[in-house]
Amino acid sequence: MNVYAAPVRDFRFVLEELLAHRSLSLPGFEEATPDLVEAVLEEAAKLAGDVWGPLNKIGDQQGAKRHADGSVTTPEGFAAAYQAYVEGGWNGIGVSEELGGQNLTEVVASAVQEMLHGANMALGLCPMLTAGAIEALAHHGSDALKATYLPKLVEGTWTGTMNLTESQAGSDLSQVRTRALPENDHYRISGQKIYITWGEHDAAENIIHLVLARKPDAPEGNKGISLFLVPKFLVNEDGSLGERNDVTCASIEHKLGIHGSPTCTLSFGENGGAIGYLVGEEGRGLNHMFTMMNEARHKVGIQGIGVAERACQHAFAYALERRQGRSPKNRGGAECSISDHLDVRRMLLSMRARTDALRALALYCAAELDTSRHAESNEARHAAQARADILIPVIKSFSTDQAVDIASMGIQVHGGMGYVEETGAAQLLRDARIAPIYEGSNGIQALDLAGRKLQRDNGEALTALLYDVAATVEKLNADPALRALGRGLAAGLEDLKTAQAIVLEQGSDPEKGADAVQAYATPFLNLAGHVLCAWQMGQAALSAQAALNNGNDDPFYTAKMRSAEFAITQWLPVGRAQRAVIEAGTQCLSEFEVY
Amino acid sequence: MNVYAAPVRDFRFVLEELLAHRSLSLPGFEEATPDLVEAVLEEAAKLAGDVWGPLNKIGDQQGAKRHADGSVTTPEGFAAAYQAYVEGGWNGIGVSEELGGQNLTEVVASAVQEMLHGANMALGLCPMLTAGAIEALAHHGSDALKATYLPKLVEGTWTGTMNLTESQAGSDLSQVRTRALPENDHYRISGQKIYITWGEHDAAENIIHLVLARKPDAPEGNKGISLFLVPKFLVNEDGSLGERNDVTCASIEHKLGIHGSPTCTLSFGENGGAIGYLVGEEGRGLNHMFTMMNEARHKVGIQGIGVAERACQHAFAYALERRQGRSPKNRGGAECSISDHLDVRRMLLSMRARTDALRALALYCAAELDTSRHAESNEARHAAQARADILIPVIKSFSTDQAVDIASMGIQVHGGMGYVEETGAAQLLRDARIAPIYEGSNGIQALDLAGRKLQRDNGEALTALLYDVAATVEKLNADPALRALGRGLAAGLEDLKTAQAIVLEQGSDPEKGADAVQAYATPFLNLAGHVLCAWQMGQAALSAQAALNNGNDDPFYTAKMRSAEFAITQWLPVGRAQRAVIEAGTQCLSEFEVY
Repeated sequence: MNVYAAPVRDFRFVLEELLAHRSLSLPGFEEATPDLVEAVLEEAAKLAGDVWGPLNKIGDQQGAKRHADGSVTTPEGFAAAYQAYVEGGWNGIGVSEELGGQNLTEVVASAVQEMLHGANMALGLCPMLTAGAIEALAHHGSDALKATYLPKLVEGTWTGTMNLTESQAGSDLSQVRTRALPENDHYRISGQKIYITWGEHDAAENIIHLVLARKPDAPEGNKGISLFLVPKFLVNEDGSLGERNDVTCASIEHKLGIHGSPTCTLSFGENGGAIGYLVGEEGRGLNHMFTMMNEARHKVGIQGIGVAERACQHAFAYALERRQGRSPKNRGGAECSISDHLDVRRMLLSMRARTDALRALALYCAAELDTSRHAESNEARHAAQARADILIPVIKSFSTDQAVDIASMGIQVHGGMGYVEETGAAQLLRDARIAPIYEGSNGIQALDLAGRKLQRDNGEALTALLYDVAATVEKLNADPALRALGRGLAAGLEDLKTAQAIVLEQGSDPEKGADAVQAYATPFLNLAGHVLCAWQMGQAALSAQAALNNGNDDPFYTAKMRSAEFAITQWLPVGRAQRAVIEAGTQCLSEFEVY
Repeated sequence: MNVYAAPVRDFRFVLEELLAHRSLSLPGFEEATPDLVEAVLEEAAKLAGDVWGPLNKIGDQQGAKRHADGSVTTPEGFAAAYQAYVEGGWNGIGVSEELGGQNLTEVVASAVQEMLHGANMALGLCPMLTAGAIEALAHHGSDALKATYLPKLVEGTWTGTMNLTESQAGSDLSQVRTRALPENDHYRISGQKIYITWGEHDAAENIIHLVLARKPDAPEGNKGISLFLVPKFLVNEDGSLGERNDVTCASIEHKLGIHGSPTCTLSFGENGGAIGYLVGEEGRGLNHMFTMMNEARHKVGIQGIGVAERACQHAFAYALERRQGRSPKNRGGAECSISDHLDVRRMLLSMRARTDALRALALYCAAELDTSRHAESNEARHAAQARADILIPVIKSFSTDQAVDIASMGIQVHGGMGYVEETGAAQLLRDARIAPIYEGSNGIQALDLAGRKLQRDNGEALTALLYDVAATVEKLNADPALRALGRGLAAGLEDLKTAQAIVLEQGSDPEKGADAVQAYATPFLNLAGHVLCAWQMGQAALSAQAALNNGNDDPFYTAKMRSAEFAITQWLPVGRAQRAVIEAGTQCLSEFEVY
């Protein structure tokens, strides 16, 4: 039962039918063909299913361990599984050729990442953080830094971390206190960082820490923060590893889940200062980090979807196997699978429909990211970036909230067995529960959407996106068999427009705008997530119906139709309620006395 | 931070203002005065806060342990804390005087139970199961059995268990295979039971198992199942403990949460058969169990509320203490508590409002249970029983689903700290997660409501209850300050009536009725839960507004007003969406192919 099989058929449906492989026609991807993409998906599925997946439970049970000398060992098999990933060239899959990567589209890279997180979320975090470091370095590092560090990071022989949080500086990074003292061509870094994912481990030969810190003369607040590169082992001129740098793992956290991923407290400079190098401009550390965080947030959403998919697979397998009770159709007959009970089917279809929808939306966003980087025209690039900017907080937040709920529902499908750790369903809830918290909590994502992203262009990018939703409504309405879906999606669209108008109007109030944005942010993001997911399932219904109309009798398409019907007629209504929540105003929130 | 303080003020609000102490005027409670009730609540709060609460984390960390000889030890301090409870006479609090109990109302007993579960859910399970055994024995046991076992069970010096589940018999108990061979005045029981809460432990001198089993000549299915009493130690004629009976703990489960509660696999009859005694009539075992389960379900709902309350307290304390960011009102100023951020306040108020509402509804139901047992007229007793029968599946299911969500939201309020086990917030989610599963899964509760309870009287009991909801709407509408709440509640009421009509109409279809009930059960229960909770918060608003109108300036009342406003204007809309879910029909559920 406790296995993971990458849903290649589902990925192909999204890539081939919903996205029509549009990223492949962008300049720079001439060599990537649909056949190649298919082969990549199949190969990634093997790595995920055969190598990473079987270690998921071992990782949970053994966890990462810190030893007295400050070293950290990862669970049995993790280092080898990571090596297999490196040797397969997977780490550079979404990286451009000039940086030594495989130059595949963000869409394909995202699909592969979903597989790896579904197989083993704790292990998947290691390359996810490395990708962030690559991004930051490629965009902001000097040529010298890039030459020394990028090739190894892209290969994956060295891994990367992001050192942001300190105990007094979480959501508000302006409070960072870690110090960077200039010395010759480098800096001496000292301070303590917490919650550093894969901050110390035994799976790679070197670890490259990207660290937010302040120079002694730096101004208070955001503008005094710079970004530094601090390697675990210093790197000699010839590229070989030199001395151990002055950074140690002081402790690792005992967490609810992702036990296989070492979450470290790192001490910098207990013996004179860790050697670090400035990345990008002084005082622009937060900006440099945020470039990279935007995409990392997309990946956290995808991580949630990976875990949701695994939860679906668990629950479906159990529901088909477990025999209990009689189905309504067969009261007097033999025991049936619990998957025959409509109440259980409601849980299964809810899990499946939501996972389908979230995946389609996340990969749609990946296609926009491809366009934002590779389209010929500036205009197309900017429009795609603006659209991705709107989508990313939704995908991060909505996918991870839903993933927690889907994993929890997966436990429920298992009944008492679900509560027993041996079954494996409980681990998925424990693992998934971090995703709404890290990489900017879901509340922060909502503020980013309803505040910065929506207000800066007065809703223009979202409005443009909603034109596409309206186009889908029209297509659904044109087919009598899909008209109920068109009606449902149209109603959701109307709600979202109304909510957008409220948030824009009240949010731009010079007096109370900030209050309004804060109060409406979460319900607004939730409503947007529902409507955009329903939109993608409307598209899925159009594709599936077309296949069925063409006489295709693959049960995949009928299943996808049910999934779309559920998403639009039985899930979207719950999201639509957020319009009423927004219309109820902010008063009780602001007047509530917390004591 | 990791403490629990019983919310005595909130209990008094519900008992004194919402219920106007109505149970105290029932025959049999002449000696129970409001002053006595208040003193009992204060004393229980001490036991919960000072004795049970501090052991909650220790219980989670140490867990129950099984040893090679089959014995089970509970975490440090659990046995002593249980003894303190027994010595305080708390075990008999809701038991009648004639059985040796304290003869307090179900309302008071429920309040005390919420406190104990909030303080320490794992330990609270022990007396919860004993209460079930007392109930079953008092109603169905012979005079001899009652004389031998009841006094010790009521004192709590012996504890009780419910042995229902076998690996092939979970939700469908008709598949029970445990055997009972007649022998002289007793039976020899053999078989294996799983998931037996507090099935073996070191906190009491004897354990009285109530076991579902079949005689060899019994018919297949439900009608062949009888109920047997199987003591861990046989009891001599003089009441002293005799030989060890042939029942052993084969293993305990490694669970997601409630680690302090030993969940046992019990083997009966590995050495010739455990001696057991028939309880009640042959072939009526399931009926006898269900009498007792109805009330146990009410208690599981209350357990969820206890954990939700603890999650609120955790989150409020953290949000007040944690300083991060600037509040919208004070952008340039000093750091504020995160409880100043409206987005965080939304989480806090959501947690608080839901917990308030669930508590009010559960205690309302307890008052109905009091009436059902003690009212002078048969008619009043029956009406109250019918109402409690409707409410109990809602309270069990809705309170526990909400408790899981509230505990999860509590983690979110803590940010990264919430994911670290040391903080204590994560334990609450892990503990709460069992409550939607055991004592009849929440899906089974929904079927009980939408099927048996609703169909058997064609909705009469629910309709009667909804008249009372309508009366609250009218009262709210009569006060201009509360009219928005009246409008919100009226809309929810209308939705519930519409949904009820659909479930009744389609559910009574001889062909497809069973299918319809199965498909609509969960959304129907969810809608009912929302509307009934909103109703109770409408009542709370009426009380609080009256106090405020009288010049009472206790901030408790303004906080309660905000809680009521949130519940009706911002929470109820989410539930109202379930009407649309029901109106969407059953087709996609029944046609979905699970593969």
